[in-house]
Amino acid sequence: MNAEIISVGTELLLGNIVNTNAQYLSKRLAELGHFVYRQTTVGDNAERLAQVLKEALERTTLIVMTGGLGPTQDDLTKETVAKLFNRKLLLDEVSLKRIRERTGEIELSDANKKQAYIPEGAILLPNDVGTAPGCILEDRGKIIVLLPGPPVEMENMFERYAAQHLKHYSEGVLVSRILRIFGLRESQLAGILKDFFERYENPTVAPYASDGEVTVRITARATDKKQAEKMIAPVAEEIIKRLGDHIYAEGKTSLEEVVIEMLKKAHLSIATAESCTGGLMASKLINVPGASEVFKEGIIAYSNEAKMRLLGVTSQILKTHGAVSAETALEMAKGVATLAGSDIGVSITGIAGPGGGTPEKPVGLVYIGIWFAGRKSVKKLQLHGNRNWIRLKSALYALDTLRRVLKTQSK
Amino acid sequence: MNAEIISVGTELLLGNIVNTNAQYLSKRLAELGHFVYRQTTVGDNAERLAQVLKEALERTTLIVMTGGLGPTQDDLTKETVAKLFNRKLLLDEVSLKRIRERTGEIELSDANKKQAYIPEGAILLPNDVGTAPGCILEDRGKIIVLLPGPPVEMENMFERYAAQHLKHYSEGVLVSRILRIFGLRESQLAGILKDFFERYENPTVAPYASDGEVTVRITARATDKKQAEKMIAPVAEEIIKRLGDHIYAEGKTSLEEVVIEMLKKAHLSIATAESCTGGLMASKLINVPGASEVFKEGIIAYSNEAKMRLLGVTSQILKTHGAVSAETALEMAKGVATLAGSDIGVSITGIAGPGGGTPEKPVGLVYIGIWFAGRKSVKKLQLHGNRNWIRLKSALYALDTLRRVLKTQSK
Repeated sequence: MNAEIISVGTELLLGNIVNTNAQYLSKRLAELGHFVYRQTTVGDNAERLAQVLKEALERTTLIVMTGGLGPTQDDLTKETVAKLFNRKLLLDEVSLKRIRERTGEIELSDANKKQAYIPEGAILLPNDVGTAPGCILEDRGKIIVLLPGPPVEMENMFERYAAQHLKHYSEGVLVSRILRIFGLRESQLAGILKDFFERYENPTVAPYASDGEVTVRITARATDKKQAEKMIAPVAEEIIKRLGDHIYAEGKTSLEEVVIEMLKKAHLSIATAESCTGGLMASKLINVPGASEVFKEGIIAYSNEAKMRLLGVTSQILKTHGAVSAETALEMAKGVATLAGSDIGVSITGIAGPGGGTPEKPVGLVYIGIWFAGRKSVKKLQLHGNRNWIRLKSALYALDTLRRVLKTQSK
Repeated sequence: MNAEIISVGTELLLGNIVNTNAQYLSKRLAELGHFVYRQTTVGDNAERLAQVLKEALERTTLIVMTGGLGPTQDDLTKETVAKLFNRKLLLDEVSLKRIRERTGEIELSDANKKQAYIPEGAILLPNDVGTAPGCILEDRGKIIVLLPGPPVEMENMFERYAAQHLKHYSEGVLVSRILRIFGLRESQLAGILKDFFERYENPTVAPYASDGEVTVRITARATDKKQAEKMIAPVAEEIIKRLGDHIYAEGKTSLEEVVIEMLKKAHLSIATAESCTGGLMASKLINVPGASEVFKEGIIAYSNEAKMRLLGVTSQILKTHGAVSAETALEMAKGVATLAGSDIGVSITGIAGPGGGTPEKPVGLVYIGIWFAGRKSVKKLQLHGNRNWIRLKSALYALDTLRRVLKTQSK
């Protein structure tokens, strides 16, 4: 069923809070087979709220509203909906009792009492977490769901009471599968998967870029989850075939989680030596719970002196090739593995800028070195962007390079 | 001026991501004197996007749009806006050059080239972080601002380029002064500055919490900048008096920038030893350009073995007090300063969770050690939150503790 979400609250329009409700509901409605075509946020103003609601009713069948059910004067959602559908607001005794228990007031204030009214004929949605109940109103072929604004109350009410009703209205489900990609830009992806992105059929395929990574989302609409997954499978298979090793995971798994998992499985330990990234790669690895099983130690060797003393890089190599070179990267990787007694050493050395670049070695030049039980590999990068971006991409590339080395190894 | 925000992206309607852009823009537009009356989210669909845009144009003067500027086929925002206003899309050579530099492609693919087109007569908004530029189109008394979808790109473009234009459309000037705070929660701040926050006058005072820090923004509306600054001064003075040492900087200066600056001024060098934060503190310090002048080296000693071998923590101390203790923190700080030959050593050791907690040493227990030319200081923290949050807060607290030590020192 086509759906729209209306979020009510001046605090949203002032930017005081993020609208997490709209995301939550969009996702859950899709899973229940209702596709959200529009999300609208409007303030606590009866006239503008009525306008938004009227417009939505002209376009769509299912409207889910959050906010404006509370005790204060500017909580207007129920009143506006009731007026629009010519329904009286009736006192719900069960809700009244619950509000009494929850507030500890025997003689309820008018403000608190106000919350216990719901439109005549509506299905009550109890609020187990707060005081204001919600409801579902069916009228003139439309379905309007009223939920409270506080996310904890909204989610509880949705999952315990609203979802089961909404299931009945749906003609099917929407299921998504997400492929996570590293080493390709969104524009490159657009070339490789052009035919998929242009399909506006079922399933749909769409790219998404964020924080240095790209994902591809495949979404199918079907009568049930199994059927949807069956529709996604051949599309995913073809995309996986085309992108090959560039896909590092599915769903929400991060690059560092993949690497830690691979290391654990292969019973391999790791140590890191970082120059320009200054601990960013190690920090990402250590953010994975249980990283201590495989992460031995990390050295942040920013100066040449530290590279020599801690990692055993020779002054000869630094003099001949420079601190930012394939040779230094490899010595750093070997050095840290030796120091830590780990199976693998990974290093990053580069010029993050803004200063320090030369025509031969410009800002953004980065070398990644990997020493793995005596075998060496090195990757040269020329990155573009500000200092923070170059450092982030360097750390991600190091993780991805390690992932590819481990993958080859396990074959 | 009345404003609306239109967010474009099917990923928002599917609930794959939270719409933080709408919040950010609502807040910033208000500060610039534009009140947002509606936020709308629509998918990557030309027809529905055009419909939303047409409706908004009937209601409002200023429309700020995010998303749909990228290289793929379903990025349609510019095309839709150009069509609606009968404008051609013209190739912008500066953007083209920038995309070439950023992607490293000499012969740009059609997908990448697509991004460099903007509607005829529009004001260009450069993208310093990504590839797709934005623009501002003025037509028929309306102002349409197009910004990219990824929050990092959007915020950079808004602050560096869009905001100054949007200032001109409001009457008078809005001037903000930002005080950066560490060591107080937003709710504590609400207590201390209650009287200021409740003033809905001119200037306004508002708190912002993000990424473990809190800021207070004082905003005045006046006929000119000088007048606005004059209105802000006494308010700022009173707030600074109340918050004292908790204020570490003004404007956009980060905690790590303050620390690096203090170290530079005092000609002091530093080395870091991190356990649970795994390089996060060092990484923050090294993100400051020119950090190499004062940062000697960092050790990520996750295991007890590494703490002993690299930092000289004795097995006696580890056995008696444990790896997460004031004693170990101090030994680590001293150890890394000795190893690096630096004036100052800073250490972090703690339990970031989710596992590893005990009733005596629960998850979130963190010790920060500082060794400064023979003098020792230690700070014990009990943090709450997930692993990532505990690690972030630990790194920030370490920087703040060092800041306070350096401040006392310089007195």
